[in-house]
Amino acid sequence: MTRRVSLLGSTGSIGEQTLDVVAEFPGRFRVVAMAAGRNVGKLAAQVKAHRPELVSIGSEAGARELSERLGADAPRIVVGDEGLIAVAEHPADLVIAGLVGAVGLQPTLAAVRAGRDIGLANKEVLVMAGAFFQRAVKDAGVALLPVDSEHSAIFQALAGQRHEDVDRLLLTASGGPFRTWPAERIAEASIEQALAHPNWDMGPKISIDSATLMNKALEVIEARWLFDVPPERVTVVVHPQSIIHSLVEFVDGSVIAQLGMPDMKMPIALALSYPERLPVTTPRLDLAAIGQLDFEAPDTKRFPCLDLAWRALAGPETAPAVLNAANEIAVAAFLDGHISFPRIASLNSRVLSEHLDRAPKDQASTLDDVIAADSDARLAAAKLIEASA
Amino acid sequence: MTRRVSLLGSTGSIGEQTLDVVAEFPGRFRVVAMAAGRNVGKLAAQVKAHRPELVSIGSEAGARELSERLGADAPRIVVGDEGLIAVAEHPADLVIAGLVGAVGLQPTLAAVRAGRDIGLANKEVLVMAGAFFQRAVKDAGVALLPVDSEHSAIFQALAGQRHEDVDRLLLTASGGPFRTWPAERIAEASIEQALAHPNWDMGPKISIDSATLMNKALEVIEARWLFDVPPERVTVVVHPQSIIHSLVEFVDGSVIAQLGMPDMKMPIALALSYPERLPVTTPRLDLAAIGQLDFEAPDTKRFPCLDLAWRALAGPETAPAVLNAANEIAVAAFLDGHISFPRIASLNSRVLSEHLDRAPKDQASTLDDVIAADSDARLAAAKLIEASA
Repeated sequence: MTRRVSLLGSTGSIGEQTLDVVAEFPGRFRVVAMAAGRNVGKLAAQVKAHRPELVSIGSEAGARELSERLGADAPRIVVGDEGLIAVAEHPADLVIAGLVGAVGLQPTLAAVRAGRDIGLANKEVLVMAGAFFQRAVKDAGVALLPVDSEHSAIFQALAGQRHEDVDRLLLTASGGPFRTWPAERIAEASIEQALAHPNWDMGPKISIDSATLMNKALEVIEARWLFDVPPERVTVVVHPQSIIHSLVEFVDGSVIAQLGMPDMKMPIALALSYPERLPVTTPRLDLAAIGQLDFEAPDTKRFPCLDLAWRALAGPETAPAVLNAANEIAVAAFLDGHISFPRIASLNSRVLSEHLDRAPKDQASTLDDVIAADSDARLAAAKLIEASA
Repeated sequence: MTRRVSLLGSTGSIGEQTLDVVAEFPGRFRVVAMAAGRNVGKLAAQVKAHRPELVSIGSEAGARELSERLGADAPRIVVGDEGLIAVAEHPADLVIAGLVGAVGLQPTLAAVRAGRDIGLANKEVLVMAGAFFQRAVKDAGVALLPVDSEHSAIFQALAGQRHEDVDRLLLTASGGPFRTWPAERIAEASIEQALAHPNWDMGPKISIDSATLMNKALEVIEARWLFDVPPERVTVVVHPQSIIHSLVEFVDGSVIAQLGMPDMKMPIALALSYPERLPVTTPRLDLAAIGQLDFEAPDTKRFPCLDLAWRALAGPETAPAVLNAANEIAVAAFLDGHISFPRIASLNSRVLSEHLDRAPKDQASTLDDVIAADSDARLAAAKLIEASA
């Protein structure tokens, strides 16, 4: 049986690797719809190789260029936010949600409501609207398969286990490029230094988040919703080699972990073929050759972003969306050279604190509340950046 | 619901720890029958604490002493090989097979045939008669739950996975007390040095087997039968800290491992309460406090016993029983001061080679064949020891 797959974010890191896995198993999968933002050249090549029924691109200008490049072979082309929704709702068995950031929330929700199983790489969907999104998943009766390596690890570690026997989730963190740097040196970190992740080949936003440990904070929030565990039962351990991708501790003290070479094709392939495993071409783990795995407690003084996860989760349902939105603005400002590296954490903390001070604590939030909180946080972060420029 | 448990080998290391777990969960389990060999004092104390319906002891003299010690409170007392069978067949939900060595084969088989689920610590049962025993388990429709820490780890790593997706089993080995010793120093090893296992508190036979890596060879054979994988898909990696208890590699390169502090109460508790997990009192794993996990390939030059596993598995069905029997005689001779430490490996190798040269290769074996091969191997090993005395 050929599984029909739609791909949100085809030209990004997850999208490209998804297409690599699909290409490795012809007849097994068919990419029926794909959506990208700006990279028309790459998207055109992907369309030629995979011949989807529908393709979405960020702008009308992009759509025109794509149409010219593809000529008579062009499939139906759709544009912008509506294009993303059209790809999400296109008839398929599985949608790989591989967009980065808040932009992925609405299309992923549309895919769920259309009854598609989801391979979720776009962690902001759960970070922003965890409770709401999981309700939608439950109502639609679809499968939600994590594609993040850490969450795929936990998903695999939980297989065949009883939820009530889970004591703690342990997310591993590489510690990023500044793990061993003193605070004074981190304060001076350049964009290039922050982008140089030691283990994973990722997009720029996630690479910066990995350097601040904000990525791990977002993953803590994601794990809390994905696996339905209270925030205090989600913990983080630094593991520089990124070989143990995450662990679950059970009430008897037994710990199940998933390991492997750092390669996103593994969790992507599992999401594509679950509950089967595919003999995908990945580098094999050789523990004797690796020789040593290291672990340390995270240093939340040098990496203050990490603790923001639990601060946000202790607040109203809108707080994680606020943290995520502030961070998107802060990272963009850092990548544009407008703010220093440590400023990312202080901006995130300040925007979150202002929201926690203001927002009613125990009020359940609608999707509109989340989206409004997201917008307000972006504005607040941008104003703080502007004020200090 | 109280689970009725019978215990073969109550005064040994596994037996004592099983009783510790049972004592921690009153009402949950009831020890209804127990069997021990020679330690009358300890057995009497266990009977007083747990009040089983039936108790077995190795000799008539032991039975008289036990009866005197227990007085009017004594349950029914049975003796010797027949006593072991009576305990194995006593009405119960689960039998913990905690005897050490070949003596456990017949009573464990009797428990299976009587329809009892088995918690198997007595690895020689599968080493000696793997194919035969697994057929009996299948015919009786009972559950076979591993209690060895490595096999419990693999059992846990396989939970919720498809058998056809398994690529390799990776058993971890501590490397024993002589892991870093040069061959010349190992040649001079004393009994005390060989007994000093770095991580586990075990009986003397298993401690010596751990020093020679024969324990790991037996576990390779056990794993081959327990999890129904061909011998070449069972591999060994040395991991001195004994924190990762074993791993399973799947066809997609993903590896699932079970970790924990070295404590047999964890696999014992899991066998007792499976499929539930008990909040048993065990030391908790703190990876950041441990800091480092090491791995290396096993050195089969300094530890030639390890390769004997695959040599035996490539031979007739009787070959693993021969290897195990030779080793029991060799270890006893070493513990009695009759032979040197390296002589254990050379005796095992020689007795196995003679059997492989002689025995028809592809003949399926009956239990009688296995028992005859076991006896012949004991005799051959004893003669070789005598000849060199």
